[in-house]
Amino acid sequence: MTRRTTRARPRGRVAADARIPVAVLGATGAVGQRFVSLLDRHPWFRVAALCASDRSAGRAYGDVVRWHLDVPMPEWAAGMVVAACEPDVEARVAFSGLDASVAGEIETRFAASGYAVVSNARNHRLDPDVPLLVPEVNHAHLALLAKQRRRFAPGGLLVTNPNCSTVGLVMALAPVEAAFGVRRVVVATLQAVSGAGYPGVASIDILGNVIPHIGGEEEKIEAESRRILGAPGKPAAFRVSAHCHRVPVSDGHIVAFSVATARRAEPAEAVAALRAWRSPLAGLGLPSLPERPLVVRDEPDRPQPRHDRMAGAGMSVTVGRVRPCPVLGLRMVALVHNTIRGAAGVALLNAELLKAIGFLL
Amino acid sequence: MTRRTTRARPRGRVAADARIPVAVLGATGAVGQRFVSLLDRHPWFRVAALCASDRSAGRAYGDVVRWHLDVPMPEWAAGMVVAACEPDVEARVAFSGLDASVAGEIETRFAASGYAVVSNARNHRLDPDVPLLVPEVNHAHLALLAKQRRRFAPGGLLVTNPNCSTVGLVMALAPVEAAFGVRRVVVATLQAVSGAGYPGVASIDILGNVIPHIGGEEEKIEAESRRILGAPGKPAAFRVSAHCHRVPVSDGHIVAFSVATARRAEPAEAVAALRAWRSPLAGLGLPSLPERPLVVRDEPDRPQPRHDRMAGAGMSVTVGRVRPCPVLGLRMVALVHNTIRGAAGVALLNAELLKAIGFLL
Amino acid sequence: MTRRTTRARPRGRVAADARIPVAVLGATGAVGQRFVSLLDRHPWFRVAALCASDRSAGRAYGDVVRWHLDVPMPEWAAGMVVAACEPDVEARVAFSGLDASVAGEIETRFAASGYAVVSNARNHRLDPDVPLLVPEVNHAHLALLAKQRRRFAPGGLLVTNPNCSTVGLVMALAPVEAAFGVRRVVVATLQAVSGAGYPGVASIDILGNVIPHIGGEEEKIEAESRRILGAPGKPAAFRVSAHCHRVPVSDGHIVAFSVATARRAEPAEAVAALRAWRSPLAGLGLPSLPERPLVVRDEPDRPQPRHDRMAGAGMSVTVGRVRPCPVLGLRMVALVHNTIRGAAGVALLNAELLKAIGFLL
Amino acid sequence: MTRRTTRARPRGRVAADARIPVAVLGATGAVGQRFVSLLDRHPWFRVAALCASDRSAGRAYGDVVRWHLDVPMPEWAAGMVVAACEPDVEARVAFSGLDASVAGEIETRFAASGYAVVSNARNHRLDPDVPLLVPEVNHAHLALLAKQRRRFAPGGLLVTNPNCSTVGLVMALAPVEAAFGVRRVVVATLQAVSGAGYPGVASIDILGNVIPHIGGEEEKIEAESRRILGAPGKPAAFRVSAHCHRVPVSDGHIVAFSVATARRAEPAEAVAALRAWRSPLAGLGLPSLPERPLVVRDEPDRPQPRHDRMAGAGMSVTVGRVRPCPVLGLRMVALVHNTIRGAAGVALLNAELLKAIGFLL
Repeated sequence: MTRRTTRARPRGRVAADARIPVAVLGATGAVGQRFVSLLDRHPWFRVAALCASDRSAGRAYGDVVRWHLDVPMPEWAAGMVVAACEPDVEARVAFSGLDASVAGEIETRFAASGYAVVSNARNHRLDPDVPLLVPEVNHAHLALLAKQRRRFAPGGLLVTNPNCSTVGLVMALAPVEAAFGVRRVVVATLQAVSGAGYPGVASIDILGNVIPHIGGEEEKIEAESRRILGAPGKPAAFRVSAHCHRVPVSDGHIVAFSVATARRAEPAEAVAALRAWRSPLAGLGLPSLPERPLVVRDEPDRPQPRHDRMAGAGMSVTVGRVRPCPVLGLRMVALVHNTIRGAAGVALLNAELLKAIGFLL
Repeated sequence: MTRRTTRARPRGRVAADARIPVAVLGATGAVGQRFVSLLDRHPWFRVAALCASDRSAGRAYGDVVRWHLDVPMPEWAAGMVVAACEPDVEARVAFSGLDASVAGEIETRFAASGYAVVSNARNHRLDPDVPLLVPEVNHAHLALLAKQRRRFAPGGLLVTNPNCSTVGLVMALAPVEAAFGVRRVVVATLQAVSGAGYPGVASIDILGNVIPHIGGEEEKIEAESRRILGAPGKPAAFRVSAHCHRVPVSDGHIVAFSVATARRAEPAEAVAALRAWRSPLAGLGLPSLPERPLVVRDEPDRPQPRHDRMAGAGMSVTVGRVRPCPVLGLRMVALVHNTIRGAAGVALLNAELLKAIGFLL
Repeated sequence: MTRRTTRARPRGRVAADARIPVAVLGATGAVGQRFVSLLDRHPWFRVAALCASDRSAGRAYGDVVRWHLDVPMPEWAAGMVVAACEPDVEARVAFSGLDASVAGEIETRFAASGYAVVSNARNHRLDPDVPLLVPEVNHAHLALLAKQRRRFAPGGLLVTNPNCSTVGLVMALAPVEAAFGVRRVVVATLQAVSGAGYPGVASIDILGNVIPHIGGEEEKIEAESRRILGAPGKPAAFRVSAHCHRVPVSDGHIVAFSVATARRAEPAEAVAALRAWRSPLAGLGLPSLPERPLVVRDEPDRPQPRHDRMAGAGMSVTVGRVRPCPVLGLRMVALVHNTIRGAAGVALLNAELLKAIGFLL
Repeated sequence: MTRRTTRARPRGRVAADARIPVAVLGATGAVGQRFVSLLDRHPWFRVAALCASDRSAGRAYGDVVRWHLDVPMPEWAAGMVVAACEPDVEARVAFSGLDASVAGEIETRFAASGYAVVSNARNHRLDPDVPLLVPEVNHAHLALLAKQRRRFAPGGLLVTNPNCSTVGLVMALAPVEAAFGVRRVVVATLQAVSGAGYPGVASIDILGNVIPHIGGEEEKIEAESRRILGAPGKPAAFRVSAHCHRVPVSDGHIVAFSVATARRAEPAEAVAALRAWRSPLAGLGLPSLPERPLVVRDEPDRPQPRHDRMAGAGMSVTVGRVRPCPVLGLRMVALVHNTIRGAAGVALLNAELLKAIGFLL
């Protein structure tokens, strides 16, 4: 198949596109594809470079990518020539959907070269000077960026977002923490296969089956949730126990948890706190900020992946079944779209926040 | 389709079949079919009556049943004429796979008429004089039968088994209780669709989806597990919190739990206790008793429904991932075949125990 | 749950809504829900009545419907009071998603009372004076409406659309028929569960399974495709053989077929004919008409339900794998969204066509 | 995990095991695992060597294999040290489950060195002197072995079995060919994921989806079915057209076909011919020969993968829905267990036949 290769021209503008040029690192991967899709027609950012492994570099994106999303590939992306993951692309922001096996070093080089690196990879999440952000929950952690100045060239910075299931957990916990104080959490996840990248889980392993193990996931949830809900650089003191399962679902992670609170939380109070919770970023006009970061449902059998993952265009977390827990006091079920709010979408929101508050030079 | 209808003659014996004649109540339902399958060529019991609703009565079983099991219907069953659920059938034991909407009253009538009723229905599980049995765990609860004598005609009795996921939980908890004492349990279940009977869950509701709710299930687990692990008629004092989910799996329930123990339990000690646990019924020669009621696996990603549900011909519970829990102390994952060990199989084992200790007149 | 019940006011207009009032018959069913969803914010039609069985009548739609679609229920629908299926509602068009067990008689009464009935039910599809329409393919069959005048009150008429898999087949066959002439067709379908209504197929029957039979479906495909591709009232002479299978897919029917043509059709010529095919209705401004009724793909492994069913907002049929057939000459694979283009969407397009050409009084 | 490594001693016999020693080539792969499972306790063969890639050689089989089957790994296999795929193992038969990328050359070397190679790989299937066997159908093709003598050392020979879906097709066609003569066949397959090896199809590609393409499969069915139903070395003259689809099913391929016959075949006659068909090998006592190679079912919705794949312990092909075809005359649906009768099981049967008629020196 021959395909005309072109420079990126999202939305066909010619010269006067004032949007910020961005690169996607690991653009052919599962998270990379989601970045490409979410950046399509973005009002603030335009994709100037799609970067991938040397194997793909130099070829048209549409020829090397195996597109997995249910939404079609943007036409402008198909014709772009893939670049190597080198910090010489025309871009000010680098969105990283890189695999953890290579992300650490590449991201550091980009930041050192003056790019604002917004990463979904796990490598730098626990670095002492790197914000691990779910922006509505802990935007104050951006204060850590001050510590990065020595490390990077002007404009260079590095922010990360947590693991997909952690995003769902901390968004549901944030209002609980604010209203009642979180002390202990026992959480079970039922995670979709898209969270494993591509090719990820073999079909013969998961069809009609459950795999009660996802390598490293439980540790990530336990460490990252405490870091996010703590002060900058000082993880919260509560304890978390996670049981992770892979289930035969395409997209959408279920996060069911029991929580012990410092102050007794009646379910009705908890529902009120969840419903009352508003994004502290609401006034900033961030394009990807959902109207309601949390959607609370009353039906006894919601949230469900198929019905609720696209709430708020995939950026809202849906919570339901808020009820007393005989052991820890309160329990509920949350649902997060793992590749949108749980990965590329939250990273994009992080970048929008950086832009809004003046961190993108 | 015309089919020769015959009286039941499992294994083709003519006159001298000394086995105990039994009836299956609700024989056309999901649990009833499993009873029919497990009773095929049973050495102690022969199926003398298949009872179902008036709609089916009088017709050949093979003509009215919609057979769901992966194993074929026994040939002798196909030709049997279905009887009504009336206590006038030639049988001494009545296995009940009846729906809860009708089970309560029918079972009482059978017991009152002198049948030993061995039920999988929930209706009488919490009756003060009815044993709720997982025989390896709490056979001592048979002492409650002494209280039934007033109620029923000679030979009449009523024993029940718990809900399917409860069976998996209590079998994994029993050695922990014995060795360390159980104080608090938080459990998440991932349950197969066969547990919902037939037609049960609509395919459009569960394909590629999770339903985080199963009506009444959480309450059952919380109440039944304490009853089974307590003294006869006196539930144990520990607290249980259950989160139940329906997943797109045909058979096999995952039961993942964290447990706080009275005495600190290191994972290695817990594994040793699980491995050392032996059925107290081992000497009775019960035909359906598995060699190992508990199978403990070391792999990081087991148990899994597809690979482990048939352990011990579906009668063993498989346990894995025994590890410390940052919140409650100890955690692990158990897997139970929900329609064998979790329903018809455990009921059959209950009947075998009754026979072995002389309760079947 | 209490919910304020309101008269339908799609889009909140007050008095001057000039749109044509329509009713949805069988509004709580699977096809009815899709009608409600597709009619949301429709520029020509406004939903004035949601009609369902007497069991639901008088209650709020949101309280009686079990919503299955991945897209949320329109808010205006939730509060509408459901009406009985009686021809006394304020509406000029009645979209019928009724079950075949009741559709025949109800639709006739509505047409007789002066409603334009646009039905997805099978009951009247083969009536001699009823157009069986896929509008881009055989809009000329509207000529049959002239024969209905005696039967119905002024304004009353009855048009139908074919079975879901037939829609996919005839849209792919139409350009082949036009360019080469169709003589014989052997078709295999792989059909999604949403085509069976609700609750439809039990999950235990279809998870990890295939059911190679759908009652009446093969006969419908064989009869309806000939009727549509023939002259009004005179089915085409070609022969069709259908093999139908239910597969564990939520939405989207695969229609794979071999076709013998009157004039030899090289695959490249067939692709050209498929690509060149344009809707004869393109100039009418029908809101639901997709830009490209047929999408032809070159990849070796397309079309696929998950990736292609939403082409043209679910109104385009995607065709791929056009290649020679060693037996019949030409073969290819088509994909149709069974509840949009294959049911409610094609019915809506039929109504739009009736409006555009002046048949809605 | 340390595991005691041992030489293979299936069934624990010490010295006097008179069974023929065999090797499994590609023993860690999907087909190799099935060979290991089917050879467990085989009365004629004992596994003397498990051969795999150099990466696995020298390590215990249980430590290198990722076991996919629902039945557990035989204990004797877990401890065997894996050998390289070199023709120096103690064995007289080599069962090949090798990947096609390496099978051709390795199999030739084994045969040249005097091993009887019984292969499931596609590489040599169409070699002029290599029998492509489904033993009940075309055992007469063993005559081709006479042509191999020049090529191989004494004892060396090479037989193959066809592609999995071809096995199902030709077993259902054989009685039709014998009774009526086959002229043209249009076949659609719905194939399980286990047919793609491991890891095979990515779960994200097939969950809730259909892939209407399997590389090379249609060509294999079209060529191999004619070769098998022809005379030795002379393919039959009929024409075959195949449409292949991958579906989200674990095991069991559906093969739905229409067939034109030389002599008109009424469905009832075809059913009679299918029912009357008996294996010509019935008298040879082959351990893996099922009692009924073909099972014919009357229900309108059978065969189904979940219910019928294990007919005859996975060695019977089930046929149903025999009915007239408006285009070709006759149509029906067949089901074959793709990794048993369609791969390792048919290969094992081939080896048993070779043994029974004295071809294993």
